[in-house]
Formats: sequence, structure tokens, C-alpha cells
Amino acid sequence: MTTQQLVAQIRKKKSFLCIGLDVDLEKIPQQLLTEEDPIFEFNKAIIDATHHLCVAYKPNTAFYEAYGLKGWQSLEKTIQYLNQNHPEIFTIADAKRGDIGNTSRMYAKAFLEDLGFDSVTVAPYMGKDSVEPFLEFTDKHTILLALTSNEGAFDFQTISMEGKELYKQVLETSKSWKNSENLMYVVGATKAEYLADIRKIIPNSFLLVPGVGAQGGNLQDVCKYGLTDTVGLLINSSRGILYASNDQNFAVAAAEKAKELQQEMAAILQQSI
Amino acid sequence: MTTQQLVAQIRKKKSFLCIGLDVDLEKIPQQLLTEEDPIFEFNKAIIDATHHLCVAYKPNTAFYEAYGLKGWQSLEKTIQYLNQNHPEIFTIADAKRGDIGNTSRMYAKAFLEDLGFDSVTVAPYMGKDSVEPFLEFTDKHTILLALTSNEGAFDFQTISMEGKELYKQVLETSKSWKNSENLMYVVGATKAEYLADIRKIIPNSFLLVPGVGAQGGNLQDVCKYGLTDTVGLLINSSRGILYASNDQNFAVAAAEKAKELQQEMAAILQQSI
Repeated sequence: MTTQQLVAQIRKKKSFLCIGLDVDLEKIPQQLLTEEDPIFEFNKAIIDATHHLCVAYKPNTAFYEAYGLKGWQSLEKTIQYLNQNHPEIFTIADAKRGDIGNTSRMYAKAFLEDLGFDSVTVAPYMGKDSVEPFLEFTDKHTILLALTSNEGAFDFQTISMEGKELYKQVLETSKSWKNSENLMYVVGATKAEYLADIRKIIPNSFLLVPGVGAQGGNLQDVCKYGLTDTVGLLINSSRGILYASNDQNFAVAAAEKAKELQQEMAAILQQSI
Repeated sequence: MTTQQLVAQIRKKKSFLCIGLDVDLEKIPQQLLTEEDPIFEFNKAIIDATHHLCVAYKPNTAFYEAYGLKGWQSLEKTIQYLNQNHPEIFTIADAKRGDIGNTSRMYAKAFLEDLGFDSVTVAPYMGKDSVEPFLEFTDKHTILLALTSNEGAFDFQTISMEGKELYKQVLETSKSWKNSENLMYVVGATKAEYLADIRKIIPNSFLLVPGVGAQGGNLQDVCKYGLTDTVGLLINSSRGILYASNDQNFAVAAAEKAKELQQEMAAILQQSI
């Protein structure tokens, strides 16, 4: 999917919501546990109930690997279901991979080609040749960790390197990599006050913003500093939507939570245009 | 496995060799491709031929994920085979994971508990709360990326942060994390000249050293600066051993290459004790 297609979807749906499909079997309605593939059935119900309210879905691979082979099967079925039924929706494999060049190439092939995700999250620590193999894929996107939503972000990301914080070095350096136009960046909603500085370095790039809701980030603050002429934001919510209820009506409750965020986004988009 | 048990194995086998099980179906003997699980059959043959020459095996997860569900099955079978037949051998899931706390916990459970690896490699970019969930596991080890063997290591890892290179900050900061006695570190053999400085910060920690062989690193140089009283080194070789030959005698050829390295290591251990 091209960035233009993503922006068109955002305009059409008046939403820049991404729903994180982080399925925890201990939190889903217990009636689903009798199904052959409870994770997929849960995802399918959530997708069916929310696909008109969001523009992206983001399964975090940890939640699937935690269930071994069965989990990988659930991940495959989920991305296949999305690609077959909602090809207009942007899909993100939240995998946070990164390795030496020939190894990163295998991850890139696995997520972007074989599984068919539109994008994958990648960690920057190993530098240029660990990221460029992901960037080679046409009409796919590599979402680089810049400033993450967790407390540990302050351990290294915000420390000053030769006069500039590490996350700013990552943003600047990555702009020089081959096919860098395929880059997006992870910036946590809990660090909204950093967004003004970030936009000076990458004025137009799309940002994937986790941390709204359960982690305490605020949508208005993120938009105030992060919004661009072409929106430039994907706001992720996972637990706040998925586990709005764990009774039989869980999907309806999830859609209501998603709708609240979508309506807030619609209002912001209307004001800003 | 405790560090003491690992050191005892090293003394007994006169080897601190780790063999990287990075299986590429395009490089293995073509006769194996008719097997139901060519990756596992290849690993089994390599393990059967080399287990007396090495103290560790390290499958890189990218090479398994690249083959989807079948690849994960091969990974499961490989670690099960190792744990059942060679429980004295140290196993490393080279996964380079790292995420926010509750998500890292799922990765830790997947690799250290469910799959039963002795250790897993982890990226430090997201800081303390992304690594500590791995460190909670008793008698397991977390191998943190410090200074990697690739060219991209110079993009961020060696840049000076408040007067100290990032990889040194990672080494120092990680020492303050809870259960940090379970930490080991990745230091590339291609950066052997950095080892003297690294040993000033972590004098006794085990280092996993990739990059000997195909990537150009030199064993003597690594040992000159990296060896400790309790050895403190695991030297990894992947392609140089696995693909020594791709005819019917591939396992014998792999064992010969492993033996060359083991004998070089035996001589080094004899000199240094």
C-alpha cells in the first residue's frame, strides 16, 4: 500500500486509528476458548466489528509466538483474513526485528512478502545495513523505533549523543538510508511534548503512536504537535479497545470504544483542515 | 543452565565454540530437500557430527520464521532434540527481541520457558523495562546486544553519548538492572580491538562473539583481549561450519571445520591457564 492510499483511507473514514491485535487468552471471553483457534476467532470478531472505524491493524508478534506453532497459525490466519476481506486496511507486523544484513533480509521476506503485511516495525540499534533490507520492498513500509512509549526509553533514547539525543540521531541518520521514503517511525504518545522537535527533523513522515489509553498518552496532545497536512499519524490503541468487555458482547463494546476514538479523530481532522 | 555448568563444559571439551544453526534451504545438500523436514534433518546431522566439539548451538530465529509455520516446527524440533539428547549443551535463541515490559514478558516465556532455550539475545534500545522480564528467569541468560559485528554498528553504537560511546553506556547501565548477573553480551569479532575497553566495564561477563570466519573476525585477536579466568567467551561460527560442503558428506566436512576451531581453542586454553 502506498502512503497516498493510506491517506485517502484516513480522509474517507475520518479516522487515523490503528487497533493493536495483542490477544491474551487470559483476557478474552472464556466462551471463545472452546473454539479450535480462539485467537483467530477473537481477532475476526474484533475486525468484523471495527474495520469501518480504523485504518490499520497491528498484531504484536510476541502475543502469537507466546503460543508457539498454534500462535503462528493464528497470526497467518489473521493477516490472510485482513488481506482477503479488507485489502484497503494498512497492516503492521509489530515485530521490532533487526539483525545483520543477510538475516534482516529473511525477516523482511517473512513479514512483507510471505505473510503479506504492509509494514513491519524494526529496531535501529544495529544501524543502516540492518534496516535497508526492509526498505527494499516497493509499496511496503518500515516503521523504525525512534522514541518509544515505555519508561526505559529514557535509558538510552533520550541521552545526548554528540550534542543530540539518540532518538534524534536515529531520525536524522535514517533519512540518509536507501529508500528512506519507505520509513515511518514509532513515537510514543506518552512523549507528546517531544513531537514538536521530532517534526523539525521529519516534517512529513508518518508516525505510529502507541501509548494512548492504557499507557496514559493523550490524543489531543499528540495531534497538537504531530499532525501534518497529510495527517501523518496512526494512533494505536490495543487493550483499551480489545478488552472493553469480556462478556458475549465484547465485539460491540470494542466497537464502541473504537468509535469514541474515531469521533474524536473526526473532530480533530475537521478542525485542522 | 548455570554459568558454572557452562564453564565446566568448556573445560571438559576444551572448546568455547558455538555453532550457529542458520539453515538456508538454498545452501544445504539438495538430497535433504526430499525429507519431510529438511531443516530439522540438516540440524540433526550437524548436531550429531559436532556436539562433542562445541558447547553451544545458536539458531537464529529469522532463518526459521522465513519458512513460516514449517520453520517454527523445525525450530521446535531442533531445540527439543538438543534438550533431550544433549542437555549439557548451552542453547541460544538468537532472536534479538525487545518490547515494552508486558510484551517482552511474552517473548521471554516463549523462548526461555515454552521452547526451553537456555538463553535469548535481546536488543537494548528500549531500555531497562524491555530487558528485565528476560532476566527474571532463574538459571537462564539474556544476551544483550552491545557492539555488533556489522558495518551498521558504527551508525549509533560507537557514537559518543555524554562522553561515552553508546555501547559502553549500554554495558554500564545494564549492570544496574535487576538480576543483571544473568546478563551476557554480544560483541562482534570484527571489533576485537574494542575488547580491552569492554573488559574494563564487564571484566567477568560472558561474551557471545559472532563474526569469526565468514565476516572476517580473528579468533586469536578476540582471545587476546576477551579471555577471562573463567574463559568468558563463546565464539560463534555459522556459515563456515554449516556449509563447509554441500555434498553427501556435509556433516563430516562440518565436523572437520568445527574441529579446526576447537583445536585452536584448546591450544589457547592451555596457554592461558
